[in-house]
Amino acid sequence: MTYLEQAPDTLDLAMARAGLSDVEAVWADYVNGPKVRKLSLSSHEAVFYEGDPADHMYELASGTVMLYKLLPDGRRQVVEILKEGDLFGFQCGRNYDCTAETLSGAELRALSRRDIDVSLSLQRYVGERMFAKMENLHEHAMLLGRKSAMERVASYLMRFVPGRGIADCMGPAEGSDVDEGLIELSMTRQEIADFLGLTIETVSRAISEMKRRGLIRIEKQDRIMIPRICNLCRLTGMH
Amino acid sequence: MTYLEQAPDTLDLAMARAGLSDVEAVWADYVNGPKVRKLSLSSHEAVFYEGDPADHMYELASGTVMLYKLLPDGRRQVVEILKEGDLFGFQCGRNYDCTAETLSGAELRALSRRDIDVSLSLQRYVGERMFAKMENLHEHAMLLGRKSAMERVASYLMRFVPGRGIADCMGPAEGSDVDEGLIELSMTRQEIADFLGLTIETVSRAISEMKRRGLIRIEKQDRIMIPRICNLCRLTGMH
Repeated sequence: MTYLEQAPDTLDLAMARAGLSDVEAVWADYVNGPKVRKLSLSSHEAVFYEGDPADHMYELASGTVMLYKLLPDGRRQVVEILKEGDLFGFQCGRNYDCTAETLSGAELRALSRRDIDVSLSLQRYVGERMFAKMENLHEHAMLLGRKSAMERVASYLMRFVPGRGIADCMGPAEGSDVDEGLIELSMTRQEIADFLGLTIETVSRAISEMKRRGLIRIEKQDRIMIPRICNLCRLTGMH
Repeated sequence: MTYLEQAPDTLDLAMARAGLSDVEAVWADYVNGPKVRKLSLSSHEAVFYEGDPADHMYELASGTVMLYKLLPDGRRQVVEILKEGDLFGFQCGRNYDCTAETLSGAELRALSRRDIDVSLSLQRYVGERMFAKMENLHEHAMLLGRKSAMERVASYLMRFVPGRGIADCMGPAEGSDVDEGLIELSMTRQEIADFLGLTIETVSRAISEMKRRGLIRIEKQDRIMIPRICNLCRLTGMH
């Protein structure tokens, strides 16, 4: 790949006419290139705090990061849970509007707004990711504003089941009797509560109720077996 | 302004080096130019529905628009309230993720993703607006997940008081004994409830309680007098 070695005007006009997969290739070149600094963080380390000067943007290369906001009296709302490939730290103002904290060991790439601002391809990549993020934030507002505690916890668990419970979910594989899933949570009960707008007691009660009804089995502290995925999905309020 | 008459590569490289006010000038040129179609809608008309093919993006030139999502059983969450200058309808997927409906008579500009995708300046403008929108969505998640009913209604009313209740609010004008504000609501009690994640009864109760405590006076159906703005602001949970 030699995109970044071309003159930027040639590069950008070529990319403007190209499809999104080319834009993704330019992005991959950029984030793996020499201009981007790599960071390794351990679990529960802060990347930045709410109110810090917003001097960098980040891509999460591996691991999990949460973004949260605090009210002056200490109430906390986790506003985003980020996974591999997600971008964060893009601010309109001069300061970060939330705190970013790792939920696991994480590899980050620190990006420069300047590099991105001068490349049509990099901008388009960021734009696409922002639009996807906005859809997630709309979905989360729906969960926080209108879903019951059980629906919120079921929706949270379904996040970890790949390809299921989404708009174009096809249900279990055809002809298969088995429709189980084993998921591993990386968040504490308190963190889950702060993401779902619930108290820790309400989260624990919902999980106990799901266990009692045979919808989930707790294998270890953080491992949960879902014996029939469709049954759990029906509790999310999306059916 | 002749930016758009220049060759796009010259234009974009010039803009990349320029400040944000130049980017805004290019945007103004574009949205007032011949490529952009204007639309006039009356109150409570749908611009598009959740699930429609996402074929256009829009700028709200005047009026108010709300974006909402529905659960299959009819529960509704208003996820954004848009005002003059706001952009909406930018999707990552092929379909709109929410319904857009006017709250008042509104003038819209229908924009083309293609035009924006080939201009660094237009992209940068959209990017800045998206980052601001993301901060609003984080703020709204905090409200929905962690604020009491009174705090939510107080926060809602403070949205209509220009320059107050925000991060760098300076309080009432110095030396002035008067700190009142007259605001006009364009949403019904049900729409307010659907934005704040409350029932209509809870919104009405909170408003009655504020009236009883002398924090607000209802002048007409939709006009509310706030005799001391700071007193209302103290109820928002941000102090």
